[in-house]
Amino acid sequence: MATAGTEAPVVKGLEGVIAGETAICNVEQSALIYRGYEIADLAANATFEEVAFLLLEGHKPSKDELARFKKELIAERDIPEMVKQNLRHAGELVNKHAAVPMDILRTAVSVCGHFDPDCQDNSAEANLRKAKRILAKVPTIIGHMQNAIEGKDFVAPDASLSHAGNLLWMMTGQKPSAEDEKVMDVSLILYAEHDYNASTFTARVIAGTLADMHGAIVGGIAALKGPLHGGANEAAMEMLSDIRRDIGPENDPKKIADWMQKAFVEKRKLMGFGHRVYKNGDHRAPILHGLGRKAAEKRGPEFVKLFELGEAVQKIMEDEKKIYPNVDFPCGMTYFTMGIPVPQYTPIFVASRVSGWAAHVMEQHANNRLIRPRAAYTGPDLMKWNG
Amino acid sequence: MATAGTEAPVVKGLEGVIAGETAICNVEQSALIYRGYEIADLAANATFEEVAFLLLEGHKPSKDELARFKKELIAERDIPEMVKQNLRHAGELVNKHAAVPMDILRTAVSVCGHFDPDCQDNSAEANLRKAKRILAKVPTIIGHMQNAIEGKDFVAPDASLSHAGNLLWMMTGQKPSAEDEKVMDVSLILYAEHDYNASTFTARVIAGTLADMHGAIVGGIAALKGPLHGGANEAAMEMLSDIRRDIGPENDPKKIADWMQKAFVEKRKLMGFGHRVYKNGDHRAPILHGLGRKAAEKRGPEFVKLFELGEAVQKIMEDEKKIYPNVDFPCGMTYFTMGIPVPQYTPIFVASRVSGWAAHVMEQHANNRLIRPRAAYTGPDLMKWNG
Repeated sequence: MATAGTEAPVVKGLEGVIAGETAICNVEQSALIYRGYEIADLAANATFEEVAFLLLEGHKPSKDELARFKKELIAERDIPEMVKQNLRHAGELVNKHAAVPMDILRTAVSVCGHFDPDCQDNSAEANLRKAKRILAKVPTIIGHMQNAIEGKDFVAPDASLSHAGNLLWMMTGQKPSAEDEKVMDVSLILYAEHDYNASTFTARVIAGTLADMHGAIVGGIAALKGPLHGGANEAAMEMLSDIRRDIGPENDPKKIADWMQKAFVEKRKLMGFGHRVYKNGDHRAPILHGLGRKAAEKRGPEFVKLFELGEAVQKIMEDEKKIYPNVDFPCGMTYFTMGIPVPQYTPIFVASRVSGWAAHVMEQHANNRLIRPRAAYTGPDLMKWNG
Repeated sequence: MATAGTEAPVVKGLEGVIAGETAICNVEQSALIYRGYEIADLAANATFEEVAFLLLEGHKPSKDELARFKKELIAERDIPEMVKQNLRHAGELVNKHAAVPMDILRTAVSVCGHFDPDCQDNSAEANLRKAKRILAKVPTIIGHMQNAIEGKDFVAPDASLSHAGNLLWMMTGQKPSAEDEKVMDVSLILYAEHDYNASTFTARVIAGTLADMHGAIVGGIAALKGPLHGGANEAAMEMLSDIRRDIGPENDPKKIADWMQKAFVEKRKLMGFGHRVYKNGDHRAPILHGLGRKAAEKRGPEFVKLFELGEAVQKIMEDEKKIYPNVDFPCGMTYFTMGIPVPQYTPIFVASRVSGWAAHVMEQHANNRLIRPRAAYTGPDLMKWNG
């Protein structure tokens, strides 16, 4: 095994390495816990705003604290004119060039930083103010971007709506039903935080150089885009669309089984399955699956059929590969059922995960140590340039 | 010691952890090697374009390969109109708002991605094309930004100039002397690559989700900004300016010693000193110090005085703390001598390090494994939300 001139082994992917401590989240085989509260408890009993407060401020909000927090978020939803200017080109960037919404969101949050009066201040107070501003602005960025992609005028934020409800309103220009708002709210709770996942770890590595909050969040967005991470919710839905296209409109069990066998033979990477930490299933997946399926039953038989297809795929994966769906698998089907354009699934993940990323940046800055591992050299032996 | 439900210890900052392999660079106490060539050999005998080719393509270029590579870079120096539009606001962003050039550079590279025809393609060929485009465009972004900050028209790239010479030309509108071009070229060689440093590691974590080259580089820029990383070249020069302001125009040894003792007592972080890996000194520092001092001797006594001040500070650090300067310490004095505005020192670091980051993104994509460590939970015990 290669080493870097020491006896330490190479740990590819940092699998199993404990890279630090956190009081924010505990990811275990047996439970997923945000600051002492189990995820199913939060999904059943809390709102996204309460969970975001919990993550950012460190405790469950009182009634007054929650009212203040919601008011602060609502007051910060507007975005700088320069960001709007850039977003007016989103249609051209997506429809004519190669950009996808995750790229445009990365740029927009970066530009928001230029106008943030606290931009260069890493104090706990300034970091908290910036965290709230970014959290409040991401749904506006997503909404305006989607409006521009569809060639429509920007839909202004609605101060009467929650984070989840306003996000749906700005993207579509339609007031969401209470059921859709609830499903979106729960999906945001499930997506808010997950300890040292790749995007959060990216944000912590950036913050560990004593770089600023906006830079760390921009890095988190860049990492979340990947299909091995947040991009999996889009990729999972694309896979189901591929299966539907290949097998036709009916869920013929034989055709589904054949499709899956072919995928196994071709070693096709099946998105939305498996997890670096969870070996016996992702605690978040059944929660979202149940809610999404109920929404599908309300929406009509074509959406129920999508869930039935997903369930068939899931059963084959579990029976034959002992690999379980992660939260991104039901998320794809759920957002599809709600009529959300596929390339916005991962940006919506950002509208939630910003709360977790920002909490980790604050935790990193509060007790900092530069994150700088080493590498084992496998390159050529020493040569002379003019040798 | 806290653990994540396992017996594995917490490794804060990943100190000493070998997070993977690389054929690009070997950072040792005894030597710094880029793909088999020692840094002093490269600084003495190669140009930055040769080194960038070495890092990106994996071998020393032939004469023809080098000519083609230089032609490709020169052809890609222009930047999209939308990036120019944004950069026209750089003066307002820096002079009126809280933005610094590193932030604006982060945004500009992110926007370049939207217009890159290969943006969503992670193949080795597409990655190499994107790497060259970003490398070629960063000096243009820096130059145009500096022009806008000074309220001047953009200076167009000059196809007759090298990467280093063109960078100086675009920032200042003055053709650089052969000596200044050489000093800049060597500083870019020294800054090009350094294995799993924090910004490169950030780029690899982002690439490890199978996110794209532009996102990974944007994350690298965000990380390099921090004063515990690339931002140290600016911070080192700011510290020397503070000492000069406090001790007056002469290098009185007693005053310098008193300033340093006070800094030690106040536990002030002295920037540009120490390194996570190098315990007996940074191989790059004496190379740049020697070149920078020669430039100062040519420029005039006030610049020699700056180097003498730096040398006095350095001696106290070595004698009393056994801590040696890293490359950022002589870099600050050298760029100051060349008349470069301090907030552009770290962006210039980017104009070089892009070559190393991109090589690592390609290496990560070629043999990928998601980089996802774990965390030890130190938060509260389980509670009920409505408990």
